[in-house]
Amino acid sequence: MELKKELTNIAKSAQEASRFMLTVSTATKNKVLKNMALALISKKESILKANKKDIARATKAGLSGSLLDRLTLSAKRIKEMSDSLIEISKLNDPVGEVIKAWRRPNGLWIHKVRVPIGVIAIIYESRPNVTSDCIGLCFKSGNSVILRGGSDALNSNVAIYQLLKAVLKKYGVPQNLINMVTTADRDAVDVLLKLNNYIDLVIPRGGESLINRVIKSSRIPLIKHYKGICHVYVDAWADLNMAENLCYNAKCQRPGVCNAMESMLVHRDVAARFLPAMLKKFKEAGVENRGCSMTQRIVKGTKRATEQDYHTEYLDLILSVKVVNDLNEAVRHINYYGTHHSDSIVTENYENALEFLRKVDSACVYVNASTRFTDGYQFGLGAEIGISTDKLHARGPMALEELTTYKYMVFGNGQVRE
Amino acid sequence: MELKKELTNIAKSAQEASRFMLTVSTATKNKVLKNMALALISKKESILKANKKDIARATKAGLSGSLLDRLTLSAKRIKEMSDSLIEISKLNDPVGEVIKAWRRPNGLWIHKVRVPIGVIAIIYESRPNVTSDCIGLCFKSGNSVILRGGSDALNSNVAIYQLLKAVLKKYGVPQNLINMVTTADRDAVDVLLKLNNYIDLVIPRGGESLINRVIKSSRIPLIKHYKGICHVYVDAWADLNMAENLCYNAKCQRPGVCNAMESMLVHRDVAARFLPAMLKKFKEAGVENRGCSMTQRIVKGTKRATEQDYHTEYLDLILSVKVVNDLNEAVRHINYYGTHHSDSIVTENYENALEFLRKVDSACVYVNASTRFTDGYQFGLGAEIGISTDKLHARGPMALEELTTYKYMVFGNGQVRE
Repeated sequence: MELKKELTNIAKSAQEASRFMLTVSTATKNKVLKNMALALISKKESILKANKKDIARATKAGLSGSLLDRLTLSAKRIKEMSDSLIEISKLNDPVGEVIKAWRRPNGLWIHKVRVPIGVIAIIYESRPNVTSDCIGLCFKSGNSVILRGGSDALNSNVAIYQLLKAVLKKYGVPQNLINMVTTADRDAVDVLLKLNNYIDLVIPRGGESLINRVIKSSRIPLIKHYKGICHVYVDAWADLNMAENLCYNAKCQRPGVCNAMESMLVHRDVAARFLPAMLKKFKEAGVENRGCSMTQRIVKGTKRATEQDYHTEYLDLILSVKVVNDLNEAVRHINYYGTHHSDSIVTENYENALEFLRKVDSACVYVNASTRFTDGYQFGLGAEIGISTDKLHARGPMALEELTTYKYMVFGNGQVRE
Repeated sequence: MELKKELTNIAKSAQEASRFMLTVSTATKNKVLKNMALALISKKESILKANKKDIARATKAGLSGSLLDRLTLSAKRIKEMSDSLIEISKLNDPVGEVIKAWRRPNGLWIHKVRVPIGVIAIIYESRPNVTSDCIGLCFKSGNSVILRGGSDALNSNVAIYQLLKAVLKKYGVPQNLINMVTTADRDAVDVLLKLNNYIDLVIPRGGESLINRVIKSSRIPLIKHYKGICHVYVDAWADLNMAENLCYNAKCQRPGVCNAMESMLVHRDVAARFLPAMLKKFKEAGVENRGCSMTQRIVKGTKRATEQDYHTEYLDLILSVKVVNDLNEAVRHINYYGTHHSDSIVTENYENALEFLRKVDSACVYVNASTRFTDGYQFGLGAEIGISTDKLHARGPMALEELTTYKYMVFGNGQVRE
């Protein structure tokens, strides 16, 4: 009961603060963001000190590899966090944009106007840089934020959070605009997810078990930033040199991210010409290839891909390969095994390109380009809060605009309905 | 387990059918809709016969008043349903619209393109006309639909559903595009709400208990069409004649609908001048007025409004009234007691008008107009599937456009990420 009371109070005051934000000007918001960026730099020692505590504890607990890497801060990384806040201060303020406006025959003027969503809760893994990014993006879009980060990053998160929150005070903005749930109680997330009277949106960022837990217990609308099982399909009409470049880039340029290729599909007519050189190149880059029986026949010694492989987001130098009979089989495979994130076709055939774009049910569908471009910066949207694998409200890279909703403002002069 | 299997099969085949829809042209969709409209007219006797069964059973079970009225079909109502399908056939097809397109410095062309959502489940009360409206709107927007209507309307719903589904066959469109869950098993809704691998969106239309049940058990994103506790605030600077007209219209023109006024707020400076004539007019129209202590002092004999009154959607000739000290109190009252549906201010004061529009957190906020205009037809959007009281994806009247999502189609010529 104590936990519920505490979190309800946080959510309630976050809602109040979000209403105050409706009166804060863009100029003030930008000033606050620049000041936050300065604070990160001038107080970086305190952040690094907190981060050292987290690293020591995590190392002791056996954390290693990419997880430990993502937890670790440095002067350079703090500079990047600070730069990111400056970038956000330069982006257009989406709030107040008139999306559409029209006049009705009875004289009513209807305006569809972009407004903040209200209170956004973000549940994320142990990456302290996400803390400042989320605070910056939610602040610029006029939303209150409630952060719940991974416990491994607790000290770092709290240090960043307190530093940025303190900046609000100088500008007369309510402190409750930025909130962090720091309790060690693991029920906190479940309790938070029931506060649908105060919280408007939950963004869970993380792996399968976190996402499933949130889906099961949330009464609040959510936008999932789920895993990416991304495909490149090499069509019978592909430029095979281009295909080799694209597939290599999609797999190897940064294998640990959600828009990297996990599965490569190849049309049977070009498989014998394409696969030997391609898989060799992958092997030389340290990639473990796992193929279907046809792949194994073409490239001897390739490990067999199981059904489970096609369902797996490796986030690593491992690749599943499948030879398909035609475009239709490729599309069906992608829609069935994929996570509706990013998928690409390599082809010089006009009709096939259009059919792939139309039929593949993913947030981002590409012709002749690497899947690695699915990203707010690469799309030219500015900073992003993540990549939505959902279909409602926001799909693909989520930037400032996707952190807003709209309302209809209607101007009349006495109209009544007949 | 049988129920789960049955519903899973329906949802799976609905998903397949929704993918087929990506290849159906607008012209074909419009032909199907016109044919559906004709079928309703030519087979109206079979619908009326089925409806008679429902009415007989419902009357026996004690249903009466507005519920029985909403269940009852007539030749005129069937004509309206048919006309509505013709209207939908005339509306622009939202699918394929390029919402935005731009070119990146590296030559990538990014297109944000409107596409169907996929599979939509609609859970609704016993109103047979909703069956044909939902089928028409989902079909035009390229979505599969799974309908679960109120049990009182089962025979009517099945008759309409089978008639419209039969039209699909003539045009080679998969029958599984349109589905209805007809089992008497009351667990059907809960089972349906777990099928998040196949169903993309749930729209619950109905009262508090239905909505709460759906929120609790759904793993599928949902857009609520919840009740409307709508306010008109008569400001100190109101034109009191206009205010009288607007309030009268908002309350009395059709009291049983969600955008009717349930609560009237009056600035204390004009309360003594405004309330006596207004409440008299309401009384003469059969409205039961319930007021705060100040209202009671100004208009003797007015019944006292309880805290619960301000939380109540009467959908009837009852009105709660409150005298407020200023605009801020009005805004706070509306944001606290309202359901974020439709709220209006009557004022000649420019600053107050803008402040009300900005601060009231509702889908539709009005200046000097009746709340009764919140409606897809009145807004000029064409037919509507309902009015969303949620903030994400769709807010206010939901028409064809709101039944779509988007995907990014990216055209490259060999781009890789550096």
